Amino acid sequence: MKVSLDDLPDIATGATFLGTGGGGDPYIGRLLAMNAIKEFGAPELIEPDDLDDDALVFTIAMLGAPTVLGEKAACGDDIDLAVEKLAQRLGRQPDALVGIEIGGINSLLPVMAAARLGLPLVNADGMGRAFPEIQMVTFNVYGISCTPLSVTDDHLTSLVVDTKDAKSAEDLVRVAAMQLGLSVILSSYPMSGADLKRTAVKGTLTMALEIGRAITQGRNDGRPVEALIDYLRTTTYYNECKQLFDGKVTDIKRETTQGFNVGACQLVSLSDPCDVMEISFQNEHLVARLNGKTKCIVPDLICLVDRETAEPVPVDGLKYGQRLKVIATSAAPIMRTPESLAVFGPHAFGLDEAFVPLEQIE
Amino acid sequence: MKVSLDDLPDIATGATFLGTGGGGDPYIGRLLAMNAIKEFGAPELIEPDDLDDDALVFTIAMLGAPTVLGEKAACGDDIDLAVEKLAQRLGRQPDALVGIEIGGINSLLPVMAAARLGLPLVNADGMGRAFPEIQMVTFNVYGISCTPLSVTDDHLTSLVVDTKDAKSAEDLVRVAAMQLGLSVILSSYPMSGADLKRTAVKGTLTMALEIGRAITQGRNDGRPVEALIDYLRTTTYYNECKQLFDGKVTDIKRETTQGFNVGACQLVSLSDPCDVMEISFQNEHLVARLNGKTKCIVPDLICLVDRETAEPVPVDGLKYGQRLKVIATSAAPIMRTPESLAVFGPHAFGLDEAFVPLEQIE
Repeated sequence: MKVSLDDLPDIATGATFLGTGGGGDPYIGRLLAMNAIKEFGAPELIEPDDLDDDALVFTIAMLGAPTVLGEKAACGDDIDLAVEKLAQRLGRQPDALVGIEIGGINSLLPVMAAARLGLPLVNADGMGRAFPEIQMVTFNVYGISCTPLSVTDDHLTSLVVDTKDAKSAEDLVRVAAMQLGLSVILSSYPMSGADLKRTAVKGTLTMALEIGRAITQGRNDGRPVEALIDYLRTTTYYNECKQLFDGKVTDIKRETTQGFNVGACQLVSLSDPCDVMEISFQNEHLVARLNGKTKCIVPDLICLVDRETAEPVPVDGLKYGQRLKVIATSAAPIMRTPESLAVFGPHAFGLDEAFVPLEQIE
Repeated sequence: MKVSLDDLPDIATGATFLGTGGGGDPYIGRLLAMNAIKEFGAPELIEPDDLDDDALVFTIAMLGAPTVLGEKAACGDDIDLAVEKLAQRLGRQPDALVGIEIGGINSLLPVMAAARLGLPLVNADGMGRAFPEIQMVTFNVYGISCTPLSVTDDHLTSLVVDTKDAKSAEDLVRVAAMQLGLSVILSSYPMSGADLKRTAVKGTLTMALEIGRAITQGRNDGRPVEALIDYLRTTTYYNECKQLFDGKVTDIKRETTQGFNVGACQLVSLSDPCDVMEISFQNEHLVARLNGKTKCIVPDLICLVDRETAEPVPVDGLKYGQRLKVIATSAAPIMRTPESLAVFGPHAFGLDEAFVPLEQIE
């Protein structure tokens, strides 16, 4: 299967949903991927099982603050350079690329990269959603080294980095990214086909596409939010799915600090003004609390959508007075294991409560 | 000529003098070099003219805040790794090493590196003194690219960096060094023998040695400060030489900020308590003012020495009540050209006055 121009709007919509508030603006990713497909042709989308066990796969992503990514996007040469530098370091060209996250701009940046470089793109990622830090991916949880990795910027600055663990890489790349303007290209987690099959969250690019299609089709039928939830319930990962809230944005606190967008959004119920939902975020939504009681917590997904059109609204798009529905879904099972929760469960974000699966919360 | 164990104390003393207050504690460098020479043998010291024009030379240095370098010194493997990573990036092993600065710990760190790696060390550097930033070297002034460069730490973290100019490299390496604990190994400015001959400040390692010897001999003769000044007047670079002040430390302001030690030291004259000298520093001394009037300014050298023993006192060693003499000397002619002053003259340090050569100041 090829990723076609016609697919890009739906992938972008689905990726905004799976971005759970973060991951950068997929509209930018859509423009970047569109231009790349027009110039270089549509890239081949392959399944993890199509990879030889000894194939070499690189992740490719943008890293930075979503607010900045929208203003300072990839130029293309920076993507080529990131892959070239990592290949040079390893003495071997990659056989395929894969996304590090499916949420947000990093769903479509790999489409752009695969198109430019004429490489197949693997229908998978390392999160099944978006997360703010490099170590918060299944590849790391299940033993694949984050480094060597390469970082490039639009001035064609490059860094090739080796560290002892993924968190050290995150800390180092983050300060470098801040110095370089908080929008860089990152190629990391070079891995074999066998390792990818063992550790990836599979099928997520087509799932993003199908989420977008469900919303589009639902709009034609006058029931977009319902169509979205109906589709999610048919998926293997996002099948536990609830509408948590239907309300109006009454307060937003947002700041760009330490290289992240952090803050919280408050909504008041449309039916009962005493019901208040607060959603905290670090780039992505972390926890949704109804009148102080946790209703969904990371790594399960918390997504805000327009109550009329089901258009997913990222943190950057939140505005006072918006009427939104809060949708929560389960994360992929591989993301809910004790090993995974140690890396991107609530404690990893400084939250002082244990993970409880969405379906077990009243 | 070999750099012998017996030379190390005098080189350390001379390098502290040429460090003009900064450059890190050469006592640490002396211990590091001593251990390396004991384990690997004494390195060969060669003159720039001994290099083939197409030889490949790397600089090797520690980078960070002097206060931290003393607590977190090079482990050795980090030095080997820095050279290995840069050689790997270039696809070629270096034929020799050279210091980036002769002041402070970076006079002796290259001795350690050359001993460990069995490479000759070039009797030269890129400053003839010490400076706080990577771009502040003659190699950069006269057109040699700072990158590719490598940075390593004691956890064997490594970065290989390419940037468009030396200031961008400085900015990026500085934040990386801060993240890595403000004490890293840097191998940079890979250059040909021909380029080194064209751009280096030559003969500075043996000059540091001779400065140390002059002080030692002067102590035996009961006139160390005079012996120091007598020797400096015979050199090709430091021949303009004045004792600016003889006084007592009455105030020190010092902070570690943005990866540097910045502040100022105030001395009151021993003969006339109305005469006050203030010396500002950013790692190294920048300007010495007597009752507000500039007496010596960067890149000329301002050095504080104990008034009885002529022991050079770096910024980290300044204490209230110390009795010190302030010695100023000319910088090497290659450091006083308009091109050089644009990179490390007063304006480069935020000082709002032009460079005036020491010998032209009343």
